[in-house]
Amino acid sequence: MGKETRNIYLTNIPLEEAQKQYLTQFKDKNAFKKAEKIFVLEALDRVTTQAVFAKKSSPSYNAAAMDGIAVIAEKTYGAMESNPLSLKLGKEFKFINTGGCLKDPFDAVIMIEDIVEIDDATVEIYNAAKPWQHVRPIGEDIVEGEMILSANHKIRPIDIGALLAGQIQEVEVYQQPKVGIIPTGSEIIEVSEELKDGKIIESNSRMFSGMVQHYGGRPNRYEIVKDDYRLIKETINKAVEENDIVIINAGSSAGSEDYTVNVIRELGEVIIHGVATKPGKPAILASVKGKPVIGIPGYPVSAYFVFEFFLKPLLFQYNRQLLSEGNKIKATLTRRVVSSLKHEEYIRLKLGKVGNKMMATPLERGAGVTMSLVKADGILVVPQQREGYEAGTEIEVTLLKPQEEINNTIVSIGSHDIVMDIIGNHLHTENPQLFLSSAHVGSMGGIMAMKKGECHLAPIHLMDEETGVYNISYVKRYLKDEKMALIKFVKRSQGFMIQKGNPKGIKGILDLARKDIQFINRQRGAGTRILLDYYLKKTEVEVSTVNGYDREMTTHMAVAAAVASGTADCGLGVYSAAKSMGLDFIPVDWEDYDLLIPQKELNKEEVKKLIETMKDGKFLKLIEDLGGYDTKNIGEIIYL
Amino acid sequence: MGKETRNIYLTNIPLEEAQKQYLTQFKDKNAFKKAEKIFVLEALDRVTTQAVFAKKSSPSYNAAAMDGIAVIAEKTYGAMESNPLSLKLGKEFKFINTGGCLKDPFDAVIMIEDIVEIDDATVEIYNAAKPWQHVRPIGEDIVEGEMILSANHKIRPIDIGALLAGQIQEVEVYQQPKVGIIPTGSEIIEVSEELKDGKIIESNSRMFSGMVQHYGGRPNRYEIVKDDYRLIKETINKAVEENDIVIINAGSSAGSEDYTVNVIRELGEVIIHGVATKPGKPAILASVKGKPVIGIPGYPVSAYFVFEFFLKPLLFQYNRQLLSEGNKIKATLTRRVVSSLKHEEYIRLKLGKVGNKMMATPLERGAGVTMSLVKADGILVVPQQREGYEAGTEIEVTLLKPQEEINNTIVSIGSHDIVMDIIGNHLHTENPQLFLSSAHVGSMGGIMAMKKGECHLAPIHLMDEETGVYNISYVKRYLKDEKMALIKFVKRSQGFMIQKGNPKGIKGILDLARKDIQFINRQRGAGTRILLDYYLKKTEVEVSTVNGYDREMTTHMAVAAAVASGTADCGLGVYSAAKSMGLDFIPVDWEDYDLLIPQKELNKEEVKKLIETMKDGKFLKLIEDLGGYDTKNIGEIIYL
Repeated sequence: MGKETRNIYLTNIPLEEAQKQYLTQFKDKNAFKKAEKIFVLEALDRVTTQAVFAKKSSPSYNAAAMDGIAVIAEKTYGAMESNPLSLKLGKEFKFINTGGCLKDPFDAVIMIEDIVEIDDATVEIYNAAKPWQHVRPIGEDIVEGEMILSANHKIRPIDIGALLAGQIQEVEVYQQPKVGIIPTGSEIIEVSEELKDGKIIESNSRMFSGMVQHYGGRPNRYEIVKDDYRLIKETINKAVEENDIVIINAGSSAGSEDYTVNVIRELGEVIIHGVATKPGKPAILASVKGKPVIGIPGYPVSAYFVFEFFLKPLLFQYNRQLLSEGNKIKATLTRRVVSSLKHEEYIRLKLGKVGNKMMATPLERGAGVTMSLVKADGILVVPQQREGYEAGTEIEVTLLKPQEEINNTIVSIGSHDIVMDIIGNHLHTENPQLFLSSAHVGSMGGIMAMKKGECHLAPIHLMDEETGVYNISYVKRYLKDEKMALIKFVKRSQGFMIQKGNPKGIKGILDLARKDIQFINRQRGAGTRILLDYYLKKTEVEVSTVNGYDREMTTHMAVAAAVASGTADCGLGVYSAAKSMGLDFIPVDWEDYDLLIPQKELNKEEVKKLIETMKDGKFLKLIEDLGGYDTKNIGEIIYL
Repeated sequence: MGKETRNIYLTNIPLEEAQKQYLTQFKDKNAFKKAEKIFVLEALDRVTTQAVFAKKSSPSYNAAAMDGIAVIAEKTYGAMESNPLSLKLGKEFKFINTGGCLKDPFDAVIMIEDIVEIDDATVEIYNAAKPWQHVRPIGEDIVEGEMILSANHKIRPIDIGALLAGQIQEVEVYQQPKVGIIPTGSEIIEVSEELKDGKIIESNSRMFSGMVQHYGGRPNRYEIVKDDYRLIKETINKAVEENDIVIINAGSSAGSEDYTVNVIRELGEVIIHGVATKPGKPAILASVKGKPVIGIPGYPVSAYFVFEFFLKPLLFQYNRQLLSEGNKIKATLTRRVVSSLKHEEYIRLKLGKVGNKMMATPLERGAGVTMSLVKADGILVVPQQREGYEAGTEIEVTLLKPQEEINNTIVSIGSHDIVMDIIGNHLHTENPQLFLSSAHVGSMGGIMAMKKGECHLAPIHLMDEETGVYNISYVKRYLKDEKMALIKFVKRSQGFMIQKGNPKGIKGILDLARKDIQFINRQRGAGTRILLDYYLKKTEVEVSTVNGYDREMTTHMAVAAAVASGTADCGLGVYSAAKSMGLDFIPVDWEDYDLLIPQKELNKEEVKKLIETMKDGKFLKLIEDLGGYDTKNIGEIIYL
């Protein structure tokens, strides 16, 4: 492998232009037009190729609209309360049920409630009938020859009902576009295979399959293809034969083993390589034998967006369906967002309605962070011409979840602990209508978020260096304007996480100054970092002597993972994280991990449910099983 | 059959109360809780029963984030532009691709762009590397033990990606609630059976099946059960055993053959029978062996709404999903709506954006008119306490279609002709983004709708009795305030539609006065009725001598259907309708069927497309094939 095989020249075409240019290629004469005749009973969500006209009227006869008797209207004239008319069964009336057929000479129905049966063969009526009263005329529902559905119509359940009522048994629909999905890369493996260093589980193709299904296509996933020019070429060729659209995943950047673009150039035409979006830049948009072939970058978030940018509109186009813009709402940005003028950027957001304001907090922006997309409630698009937005700006957000769900979400911003995930899950299990979202910005970040009204509650664990008391003094110092409370949550054991068996013989804080020890730290503002600084100061260990002091992680689990992998020897964190990664643990202190909340929120139904959940036996058991937590005072409220 | 078996006592409980009372029954201890373990690859749209935690980190090793070389950061210090550092392959550096594993002792990556290869075993670098630069640390995407999904979460494509990345292969989900659907009624038949008088094609169960699928359940349709107490009881019993929810269709009113409620009373408990809604009043809400059993009325529109009222929230409840309220918009009502204080009424609406206003026109209100639901764009709910709304009121509408579709719809209100359906279909076939909706209110109705700004165009055919010239004088008389135009559409042949072979020997207008002739008329304001009145006057036939003059239909096809069925001997209408119903036809006149449109609309893209469609050869062929149309001047514009 050498530098000479690399291909680093991508274009930088604005998304809208790229979409227009590419999608137009597959519109008119080259458009997907495969039709098939299928049973109406199997036609749900399929799209008609042509108008459908009723074969029969419904009802196909004049039908009684009520239970009662069929009469000849003309022969009922003169009947009145004071002068009832009696009718003889057979010639003068017949019993009839709703839906029954009204036959010559009968031309009206009198309701059963309005007659009196005199004997088995005689009734009396008290009112004359008007011709065709209480009769559903032929075709009231559907008239023979009437257009039931137009062409290009996606068949809904009610349409199936109407088609059957019009005696249509079969309908011509577009075939679902078949999308061939080719995962490539020598480093990727199936989820069922053993996961070794250097190997990554292939997951994008499975995400694509789901998206194809949601957007009206039929996914057709191929086996993983190694980075081999010949193999990739063979597989693309085969897939183009067998499908209507082909996706090749990974291999779309300009990297050295990225054969895809060269293979496609050989097989067909690369229309665009490189789009001015982040994520998604290295997308390959090509045409092979008149069929769309799209190279999608490997990072999961890029993969998702490139699919949304190009495959989704293509599938909608092939299905002749209008692409909806999605639900949009206004929200206030809680953090500054900086973006480059080079591209349009798609930022994942957590949303939360705090008071009357919808607050939007940006999530991690790395294209490799799938969870940023799993957790996202909405998307902010920063246009190419903008360098970003200041905190506090009102922005437009495209929702990824129903707004009801966001409105029903308790927003937590602050320190991270796995108990937040667990209580959120338990709350939602017991109350499916309620959600808890937690953003991890550290304790001080939580206090600042609370001050700015960005969250309903903030988990914090901040030790007062003077008194050793947790949280109270910080709240009093930073949040003077509003009456606050602390909901006591857990006491937790903080300590040094070290490799199993303690190979480096770490005993405590003083070892952090050792030259052979690599430390891994938490981000600024994290309570755990404040705790570390407190101990370093107390023991007079100079920050500059701690290797790795500047290497920051944002969660306990990430610190534990770094120690477990050997890229660090030691980190400060909670017992439960060390335990779950199989690490040894040197306890340092017990700290109070509490939920800061404005007093006025305490009476809200969802907060009451949260406190109820805290005290629930099943939940307490889960926390105890984690180890390193003390739940003695859980759910107590301290008014500040 | 007699009156004594009838059961006419229904309750009249407000919908919200009925929903609350009924749904609560199936919430806590009785709730649906069946779980199953399935492969993640098959878990799309399924709902988790418990939180899912990552089994492995992703990446599970420290991975190169760029193509380049792996180096030991410490050993690169001092490298700079003016003083390049050379590194030896093996001990000092290794080539590495994106995703490659960074192994001890290497702890940083330098991008391939930033090195110069000196020979096969040597490179030069110009900048020192910082530890862990261009490295995706273990767990950057997902950390082992991290919660990927909470309980009660509906799995999306991106979630499948995240689960696989966390090496999850199986996931526990709720079983899809199985919904047994029992169609009952001696008059209903399968669509494949021969349709005779007195028989109706069973279609509701198929609509329900589609709705069950859309709402996350599994439909399980039973064969049609005749109106037989024992059979119905057996089938319900069986269905309760085999399903989680049971629907019995028809038999829920208080009619004589309506055994359902009695059968259910015998098998379990009827919780509510009768809800204060229209349509939907006779719904039966019951519980048999702790499972919901719901009796749904037979009329298709009632059936649809009762499903929406009770089955939809039940399925969402069983799937632990929040029921969204649906998209709502404001619109202006074009017609007065009168409703009873007895119930909450659900009115189907056509919507159209005319100018800047969203206009809402009520559709037919009969519970038997499936097409009113097929055509509906939205629903207006008239609360129980209201007697209705005046025309011009701003109302809230729940959308049944995406708003984009409504915004892209050309709204036609006026006279009915099948060519309107055909051109709408052709327009939408050629331009899937455009829609044409037509409401049938007759020519005069169209002119009034235009005057009130309720439509984009109005198809009219109104003969000036003085001059014999069509349309122009009416437009000049009624629409003085705005510059109008007529788009010439078709000349069409109007005449008397009579039964095949003319059994009654009808020769023309004078025969309408015959005692043995039943006529069927069009509604007031219809151009065809005006034409009839003109000829009656001209030939001095008294209206009172015409049998059936007061029996009104709103379309040519409905008139033709009445004649075809023998309930009328004669009606006035267009040739194409007579032809499609196999009737004989006595031509009376050729009339001009034109599209009235404000001049300012003529430059709009969608109107241009419509005129383009009119002149399209394929469309002209379709119209010619119908017979009775002359398209000589089609697409010409007359400025008035």
